[in-house]
Amino acid sequence: MDTIDITYEITIRADEDIRTICREIALEQTVELPDELVQSAFIRKSIIGKVQSINQVNEKPHLYSVIIAYNPEISGHNIPQLLNLLYGNISLKNNIKIVNVAFPDSFLEHFFGPAYGISGIRQLTGIWGRPLFSTALKPMGLEPKEFAAIAKSFALGGGDIIKDDHGLDNQSFSNFYERVARCQDAVSTVYAKTGQKTLYFPNICVNFEEIERTLDYAKRLSVEGVLVSPFLMGADIMRYISKQYGFIIMAHPALTGTFFSYSAHGISATVLLGTLFRLFGADISVYPNTGGRFGFTLDECKEINARLATKPLGKLKGAFGAPAGGMSIDNIEDMAKHYGPDVVYLIGGALHGYDTNLEKATKIFMEKIALYFNEYKTTPTDKQFVSACEIGHSSSKLLEYMKFNNTSCMWSGRQPVLYKTDSNIDFSKITRHELTGKNGESTSFDLRYFQIEPNGYSSFEKHVHEHVIICLKGEGMLKCGQNTYTLNPYDIAYVPPSTPHQLKNTSNETFGFFCIVDHVRDQPEKGL
Amino acid sequence: MDTIDITYEITIRADEDIRTICREIALEQTVELPDELVQSAFIRKSIIGKVQSINQVNEKPHLYSVIIAYNPEISGHNIPQLLNLLYGNISLKNNIKIVNVAFPDSFLEHFFGPAYGISGIRQLTGIWGRPLFSTALKPMGLEPKEFAAIAKSFALGGGDIIKDDHGLDNQSFSNFYERVARCQDAVSTVYAKTGQKTLYFPNICVNFEEIERTLDYAKRLSVEGVLVSPFLMGADIMRYISKQYGFIIMAHPALTGTFFSYSAHGISATVLLGTLFRLFGADISVYPNTGGRFGFTLDECKEINARLATKPLGKLKGAFGAPAGGMSIDNIEDMAKHYGPDVVYLIGGALHGYDTNLEKATKIFMEKIALYFNEYKTTPTDKQFVSACEIGHSSSKLLEYMKFNNTSCMWSGRQPVLYKTDSNIDFSKITRHELTGKNGESTSFDLRYFQIEPNGYSSFEKHVHEHVIICLKGEGMLKCGQNTYTLNPYDIAYVPPSTPHQLKNTSNETFGFFCIVDHVRDQPEKGL
Repeated sequence: MDTIDITYEITIRADEDIRTICREIALEQTVELPDELVQSAFIRKSIIGKVQSINQVNEKPHLYSVIIAYNPEISGHNIPQLLNLLYGNISLKNNIKIVNVAFPDSFLEHFFGPAYGISGIRQLTGIWGRPLFSTALKPMGLEPKEFAAIAKSFALGGGDIIKDDHGLDNQSFSNFYERVARCQDAVSTVYAKTGQKTLYFPNICVNFEEIERTLDYAKRLSVEGVLVSPFLMGADIMRYISKQYGFIIMAHPALTGTFFSYSAHGISATVLLGTLFRLFGADISVYPNTGGRFGFTLDECKEINARLATKPLGKLKGAFGAPAGGMSIDNIEDMAKHYGPDVVYLIGGALHGYDTNLEKATKIFMEKIALYFNEYKTTPTDKQFVSACEIGHSSSKLLEYMKFNNTSCMWSGRQPVLYKTDSNIDFSKITRHELTGKNGESTSFDLRYFQIEPNGYSSFEKHVHEHVIICLKGEGMLKCGQNTYTLNPYDIAYVPPSTPHQLKNTSNETFGFFCIVDHVRDQPEKGL
Repeated sequence: MDTIDITYEITIRADEDIRTICREIALEQTVELPDELVQSAFIRKSIIGKVQSINQVNEKPHLYSVIIAYNPEISGHNIPQLLNLLYGNISLKNNIKIVNVAFPDSFLEHFFGPAYGISGIRQLTGIWGRPLFSTALKPMGLEPKEFAAIAKSFALGGGDIIKDDHGLDNQSFSNFYERVARCQDAVSTVYAKTGQKTLYFPNICVNFEEIERTLDYAKRLSVEGVLVSPFLMGADIMRYISKQYGFIIMAHPALTGTFFSYSAHGISATVLLGTLFRLFGADISVYPNTGGRFGFTLDECKEINARLATKPLGKLKGAFGAPAGGMSIDNIEDMAKHYGPDVVYLIGGALHGYDTNLEKATKIFMEKIALYFNEYKTTPTDKQFVSACEIGHSSSKLLEYMKFNNTSCMWSGRQPVLYKTDSNIDFSKITRHELTGKNGESTSFDLRYFQIEPNGYSSFEKHVHEHVIICLKGEGMLKCGQNTYTLNPYDIAYVPPSTPHQLKNTSNETFGFFCIVDHVRDQPEKGL
């Protein structure tokens, strides 16, 4: 059985027995019963955690490194229950620290992770080979137009990302809607005039009822990313925002500090802000840099970066670490040396304080960064964009009405596009029409129409996202896992997650069908 | 100005200055800038926290009690931002412990707190003058029917509340839907036969997308309360569930432990599990009792109870504390003596282990409780149960294939449902078929088919979510904002966010169209 293997560091008293404590953890995190009350052979075998190894690390205090393996099914493959499995009840105990978690690929397949990741953000911004430079809108209490002026100056100075301070909300003294409209307009205007692309990330920190209204609003204004504090809002909400809305996610560590402030108990920062935040969908994870206002070591920071960016985590994309918290221009050299190009420098107060002219200050910071990464390119690359989701950039116009032409079998304002661009994939005589979802709509789904000529077929593939298919014309065959269905006009088919499937034209006429999919979705793999 | 007054205990080194550190906290939790960079008189006066008092508590180590007052507007009156104001960034520092928070009434007026509280739960259950007795369904890994047998035995034994273990989810080995149906049926059946009212609380620990589907399901089965772990799900989700669904909320402290495991840093358990959980809507707050598997003191437990039940918190109702975690029959006497009647005894393993006959064990526990509270009453109540939110649901099966029938214009396995249930809304001659999205699929969209007979029309409405419409048959008219479109087969229309719209049949034949919408979406309002 594939297992989730959690490594704990456990400190015990001289009169305690490490084996007993390990077994108690394995019970506490699963059945919550004493050993003797669990009778079922199935539960003993498949539910209770298995202590895999116990190694003494230190004599005084008595410190052990322990690995316990858990059945991934216990997590229900959702983030709230995963957090419970990791640290729900034992958080209430003492002297148990999680220092590593290894997830099997079969578990990771249930997660999307970063929708953009490093590659997607570089593709979107056209910045390769150097760190991105980011700052925060502050201080809380300024008027929206004052924040917009800051955003404009930062953009004119060539900065890459400007985010709300995570304390900016929809307060009586700082209206969210006005701030977001003005700040997004500021960066868009600079882009239109100068070609300098600066991303603006508003802070999403609202009541449950307002989450979608807020996100819809930002989406309509063409905002491309948001700041989320998963431990203020709920960690799963971050994943949802990424998956459902396709925003770039910058994750803020607010309220996470007690997990790692005490070395003997909690979850290490590298696991939480590195591995878990990446799993939960952060494209950029902000963490307190060494040498700043907070107390991380250089090794911890490097490890967070590695867990985000380079360490394998199933097929999940690598994400940017964003060292922050009291960084100044003098830290750039060290960060350049230790972290390389794949990080986001988040510098707030020190940039604002560097010069009263923020545009000038930003230019100076950008020049300083260029000193260490002088070969970076700002031209688009020909590197193939391997996107999980091909998030909506299309040159088609958003249309309220697309007239169907019976003769051409096409819609007004929509041209067919290539079915797939990868020549290694086997398909035949099939075209694709992107009808809605890629033209500036903010729906959570895309509506496409496919047409297969006689003897043609789609690629045999599988993916986590589901298909809903509506046959429009002709006759075709759907292979779906072990099943085969004949599709005639208006028949509907549903392809469940991770089910290999293929469509073929089985008649002498054109076979046409709609296919609806989640807007944010994983990349197909071969069906076999 | 009314202020939120936070009391911190701060431990400093001999070479540190307490005044400087207090000012740093007041800045860090608000403007996140050094003092000298904040120019605005308004911000200095109204945004930055005000250090109210500094008192030395201890010489070695240097421990101070400090009160800082904050403008309540900073919280935006929402829970995520309140958590940030309380402990967002300073959680990442060290040696700062929150030991008290005093909220002004003007702030508390923005919150509902416990929907039932002690009075409401006593009213509903008819139990006065004694503690309620609760247990958990465990161990994880049992079949739903085995859990239902446990629930039945507990109810027959006279127990008051049986909740899912908080690790029970919708796992492959433990289907949520079947478990909830069977367990609720078990307690309902006992009630119908014997008049013994036992409440069953399923655990809500799911993906964001499934929160409402799960709650709707429980509501339909007449479940009256739920278990929520606010730090697994997001604290504001607990408030939302209480406010929107009217369930009794039992709050579980999973994942909160690091806030209070270290005495020098964090948020005290009394503030978090007492004051804040009550503010966030807990009717019952589970906490680790003294003398159990976890390490609280008796004074801490009494203080949690007091903060939940009796200490004034604006107009918010008092809530039950639920001491738990390794409690046995031998703890009942102490709990009775120290806590009085207004608590819920939550006893899991010790009840299950007391006797293989759970009904008998429950009776013995109930008799033990009665020893200390022998005057309690059990009169029924006529209190009206208040519910909210009716997002569409159906009991249809997930199908891979739905055959279209040209004659009936229906799909196999799908029956038409009412268009809307609200008789105040004007529509005519229209039916709805829920095709995919409401039957266990996890798509981010729902596919529906609507059919309007001649002279019929849909309601004139608007909402933030968008519509994608595909005409299937007949001819109709779409009014969309200022525009009007004629729809013939296969024409596609897109209704932008917040655009008033209506569909009418303009021919003498049936007009049928698909309409695709986001699965999670806002409720429509009238178009005008």
